[in-house]
Amino acid sequence: MQARIEVGVLGATGMVGQHFLKFLDGHPWFRISWLAASERSAGKRYGEAVPWHLAGAAPDGAAGLTVEECQPGRGPRLVFSALDASVAGEIEQEFARGGHVVVSNSRNHRMDADVPLLVPEINSAHLKLIPLQQRQRGWKGMIVTNPNCSTVTLTMVLAPLKPFGITKAVATTLQAISGAGYPGVASMDIVGNVIPFIGGEEEKMQQETQKILGDYMASAGEIRPLPAMVSAHCNRVPVVDGHTVTVSVGFEKKPALAEVLEAYESFRSIPQERQLPSAPARPVVLMQEKDRPQPRKDAERDRGMAVFVGRVRECPVLDYKMVALGHNTIRGAAGAAVLNAELMYSEGLLD
Amino acid sequence: MQARIEVGVLGATGMVGQHFLKFLDGHPWFRISWLAASERSAGKRYGEAVPWHLAGAAPDGAAGLTVEECQPGRGPRLVFSALDASVAGEIEQEFARGGHVVVSNSRNHRMDADVPLLVPEINSAHLKLIPLQQRQRGWKGMIVTNPNCSTVTLTMVLAPLKPFGITKAVATTLQAISGAGYPGVASMDIVGNVIPFIGGEEEKMQQETQKILGDYMASAGEIRPLPAMVSAHCNRVPVVDGHTVTVSVGFEKKPALAEVLEAYESFRSIPQERQLPSAPARPVVLMQEKDRPQPRKDAERDRGMAVFVGRVRECPVLDYKMVALGHNTIRGAAGAAVLNAELMYSEGLLD
Amino acid sequence: MQARIEVGVLGATGMVGQHFLKFLDGHPWFRISWLAASERSAGKRYGEAVPWHLAGAAPDGAAGLTVEECQPGRGPRLVFSALDASVAGEIEQEFARGGHVVVSNSRNHRMDADVPLLVPEINSAHLKLIPLQQRQRGWKGMIVTNPNCSTVTLTMVLAPLKPFGITKAVATTLQAISGAGYPGVASMDIVGNVIPFIGGEEEKMQQETQKILGDYMASAGEIRPLPAMVSAHCNRVPVVDGHTVTVSVGFEKKPALAEVLEAYESFRSIPQERQLPSAPARPVVLMQEKDRPQPRKDAERDRGMAVFVGRVRECPVLDYKMVALGHNTIRGAAGAAVLNAELMYSEGLLD
Amino acid sequence: MQARIEVGVLGATGMVGQHFLKFLDGHPWFRISWLAASERSAGKRYGEAVPWHLAGAAPDGAAGLTVEECQPGRGPRLVFSALDASVAGEIEQEFARGGHVVVSNSRNHRMDADVPLLVPEINSAHLKLIPLQQRQRGWKGMIVTNPNCSTVTLTMVLAPLKPFGITKAVATTLQAISGAGYPGVASMDIVGNVIPFIGGEEEKMQQETQKILGDYMASAGEIRPLPAMVSAHCNRVPVVDGHTVTVSVGFEKKPALAEVLEAYESFRSIPQERQLPSAPARPVVLMQEKDRPQPRKDAERDRGMAVFVGRVRECPVLDYKMVALGHNTIRGAAGAAVLNAELMYSEGLLD
Repeated sequence: MQARIEVGVLGATGMVGQHFLKFLDGHPWFRISWLAASERSAGKRYGEAVPWHLAGAAPDGAAGLTVEECQPGRGPRLVFSALDASVAGEIEQEFARGGHVVVSNSRNHRMDADVPLLVPEINSAHLKLIPLQQRQRGWKGMIVTNPNCSTVTLTMVLAPLKPFGITKAVATTLQAISGAGYPGVASMDIVGNVIPFIGGEEEKMQQETQKILGDYMASAGEIRPLPAMVSAHCNRVPVVDGHTVTVSVGFEKKPALAEVLEAYESFRSIPQERQLPSAPARPVVLMQEKDRPQPRKDAERDRGMAVFVGRVRECPVLDYKMVALGHNTIRGAAGAAVLNAELMYSEGLLD
Repeated sequence: MQARIEVGVLGATGMVGQHFLKFLDGHPWFRISWLAASERSAGKRYGEAVPWHLAGAAPDGAAGLTVEECQPGRGPRLVFSALDASVAGEIEQEFARGGHVVVSNSRNHRMDADVPLLVPEINSAHLKLIPLQQRQRGWKGMIVTNPNCSTVTLTMVLAPLKPFGITKAVATTLQAISGAGYPGVASMDIVGNVIPFIGGEEEKMQQETQKILGDYMASAGEIRPLPAMVSAHCNRVPVVDGHTVTVSVGFEKKPALAEVLEAYESFRSIPQERQLPSAPARPVVLMQEKDRPQPRKDAERDRGMAVFVGRVRECPVLDYKMVALGHNTIRGAAGAAVLNAELMYSEGLLD
Repeated sequence: MQARIEVGVLGATGMVGQHFLKFLDGHPWFRISWLAASERSAGKRYGEAVPWHLAGAAPDGAAGLTVEECQPGRGPRLVFSALDASVAGEIEQEFARGGHVVVSNSRNHRMDADVPLLVPEINSAHLKLIPLQQRQRGWKGMIVTNPNCSTVTLTMVLAPLKPFGITKAVATTLQAISGAGYPGVASMDIVGNVIPFIGGEEEKMQQETQKILGDYMASAGEIRPLPAMVSAHCNRVPVVDGHTVTVSVGFEKKPALAEVLEAYESFRSIPQERQLPSAPARPVVLMQEKDRPQPRKDAERDRGMAVFVGRVRECPVLDYKMVALGHNTIRGAAGAAVLNAELMYSEGLLD
Repeated sequence: MQARIEVGVLGATGMVGQHFLKFLDGHPWFRISWLAASERSAGKRYGEAVPWHLAGAAPDGAAGLTVEECQPGRGPRLVFSALDASVAGEIEQEFARGGHVVVSNSRNHRMDADVPLLVPEINSAHLKLIPLQQRQRGWKGMIVTNPNCSTVTLTMVLAPLKPFGITKAVATTLQAISGAGYPGVASMDIVGNVIPFIGGEEEKMQQETQKILGDYMASAGEIRPLPAMVSAHCNRVPVVDGHTVTVSVGFEKKPALAEVLEAYESFRSIPQERQLPSAPARPVVLMQEKDRPQPRKDAERDRGMAVFVGRVRECPVLDYKMVALGHNTIRGAAGAAVLNAELMYSEGLLD
């Protein structure tokens, strides 16, 4: 690849936007050339417009760009959307209508029937919805979304086991504070505490999981959701990055433990085959230690793009149980979207 | 009651022992007159023998007592055991053999067929095992145990629902660090982190729950465990006091949500009827707020003796799900044992 | 005392207001009968108007009161002000003008020359400013203030040593998050972190300390500030309650270490002599342990009203150094104001 | 450099040893070929002998090495010492006597008159003690030490200001838990808490600072300590990595603020000139933000090798005050020792 593809970021000054800038810094294929945010920031240099909340400082390249308003037409074809859900619905549609490829982390269009809710290792076939989406909506551009930060981890735990016929899954999350953005969770609410509720999160985990693990039905041109029941209990814990998820899972026919372990060990997919730049060597890393994965010790490994699974064992109620960990702002947000864009590029969708 | 009953504490210098001293300070029925610990501490004043780890300082009355060795015969009839599991098995038997009433927080004898694993609001009938225990073992004394700190919370969530025919329960714990004693969990392992494993804890929760919720069968002179499958996922989180537990529960026949709520609202038992000194007004407190209970805000309420339940709602996999909170070192340890002793006193077992 | 004195709280729904309600719950002299807050809350029952942020729930008595607007004339004579600094200046003056005794925790009038900045153990003589204040301003009411939460601790460390002629003090604070109100500090900024800056705090500590430790000059009718140089470094740390302060202090003539210790041990003052209800038995508690005081273990002791001092030792740069701890929302805010009102009552200022 | 220099690590299984392995992984000059630890670990593969406490896993290269006992003669000439102070004194001497170059992080020999206490940016001239050390002790090898983790930060704050004639410094530390090793600080002691005492730390900061900033006197062949008074208050806070230090400093003649800032901005030294591999581009990074540096956001920057200084301002008691941050396990331990070895290599001391 001689020249890098120019990309833009919608909602660049928010916390998710900052994660996009950080994750894309030094990316071999993509180069940020355009940043957009609300009127309040427009016209300012990014380095001045943004109160940078992540460790370190804003990447030099991005810091010098002038922030523009979120209006289609001016930025590059490929834009990542880090917009807040309160505005993402409208703006993303305008950009897709205006010919942009919108790779979004926002929740607004995830459950639209003609919008792929994409996890490249799991459901790359869902990109086949794009022609339908463009035809139905009369767009030259498109919208592709990635799941909620806790959903990614759950689906990566379940995907390798899909061949065994998943019927039920009960998941409890222990979610990091970075998932709530900035200012997000008040310290008085979470220091030395647990908050056993995250608005809308359980519904998202339940529905998105079924869609992601569903099959694209060519005849009907639609996704048939996985016919499994999923139940989520979502909790916030005083951890900075990395969502931990305990999972109990039941199958049509219970596989042997060795089969489950082998399914994880051997799980590879298109991003690995095509060696996409952000693809982890192994999408699911099976840990042997009895007390791992742990967010502070494991979430940053493999650049935050792998999901770590440990303690796979029999469940007295369903069939097996295990604990998993995913980096919520990387694999669960910015990194997920970038990997989606890489897959789309490798499919020729960015041409 | 004119004079308070003298009680002793085995393992008084450890962290659980300290919780006993703190909880018994000012108790209307019981007065600590005897403290025992390992050889290392024996002969010293308690205030000097102990590195006090709890907030504040050791209660004045106890601080002045001389620590003795853990040998039966010298202390008062009623002794609370805060012994470490590595020595509790033997020592507690010696004390029971020597005529002492041993009210233990240790795990060693919990699953013995003739030892009550007592939660006064749930299974006071299990005290009927005592005559059998004394006859079988040839003891004048006895051993009564309380459950593991996370089991108490789970059983209090389930007990009011037992009439609906519990068949399955999946529980995930978010356990406080105080449950691991002192020095317990290294700060390098838990600050900003989650540890998804606690040795032996899941097995304890699964087995103890079945025993506690089981029925005493007079004919056979034994406890028939609750024939429900229980699955636990145990995690440590950076919280000081208070174990949070998410629970999904299934029934023989699914009750209406209103019936479940009513079961919690109306749940009262013998400790409340007899107004035992440490009994909470309501053993289970149903919270209305959408994001409660929370350990730092709720665990200390009602003197740490109530279990708080919130977010009771339908579960897509089992029938209902909810979140619960119990104070692990009070309702889950020292307070549990003291309430057991109060029940035993009210039953005439201390005469 | 036959009937309790009715009191009101301005800014009752904010976090400081909540601390007032909690601290006054069950107070032997004062009974909250009137709550005022912004327009937004006015007309609602307090229990509905307030998102309660403290542990437990709002006191029953207060929860049933109807919140009114902050307008003088309607409430009882004595009102505690928990108003935000953005509005406290004006409103408190209106209440004082309207005949109310305003006992304020807000910073606005602390440095006014005719307003006592009161710490009852230290400078009760400053109440002599009141006649001047009333005359100058033409008020029937009055305003009395308490210091900033970290200033209280520093002044209590210094006050017993004032007889030795304090010339210099360098203080570094490690302040709890509760000092920043709600939502206050974002969890992303403080979990596992230190913030080495708190807006305006260092200036407050430096100036308020000089005023509090200053002498009332009857002839001039003014406070002559302590002619000592004070330097503060203020930091936020992930602690819930309790400000820790390290102090190095220099004197005109260096006393012996034994004299310093004796000054702390023997320090008692008017609140102790008059046995004011909120007065701690000892305003400064000298700790012997080598690693105390500690906020999570000591701040709540003595109902949060004592200041704990430990590690008094020689300082190679100034004369002595030590570490101190005070409960920032009790001794540093609500409790401070209530103790001020108790002192004023005992002086006949509430008649 | 064609072939990398082989190095060994003494005390490789402890937490400091682990930091050495992590920091040296991929080092351009040094290659770990030999690991030594206590008898207990000797003979095992490192990957099996060590309970790895850091994030991620042990570096592959090191994990496969067989751990040997700490006996001189077998390992490479250059050995880094991560030994515990209880054994470091003796063992390091044996290795130096045996011809090894011992670059130590342990405290035992730091204050020996003939042992350099080296900070390459500050006192490279102190290496001139080596011939004396070898002559006096009859060694072919040598011992060079790096300072205590909090001392490094303080000396880096002071060194650029040395030309102004430092006379006094008062420092308060807010130290991370990783500085205490493993298991180190019990979580029950530090979660939501501050411990205002670290054994021996204040003395070390006071003495080591004077030595490091002292001058090598060629005539006397000794270090003349900086004739400044230094006072330290040391505290542990719930932060994982990065020691924050507040500093007030006084001078013979107070410089202008602009001079102080310029001294920091222009501070460069031999490691930068020689571009030693672990040297940060700027040893002291002056931050402009009003609330920085912060440990969780800044400690890892510049590979943990820079010291960050912020909030330089006038001090009412001494002349200036500021806050600084250094990564305690990198710049304050493993990285410090490696930079020392790099300097020594560049001086020809490893030939």
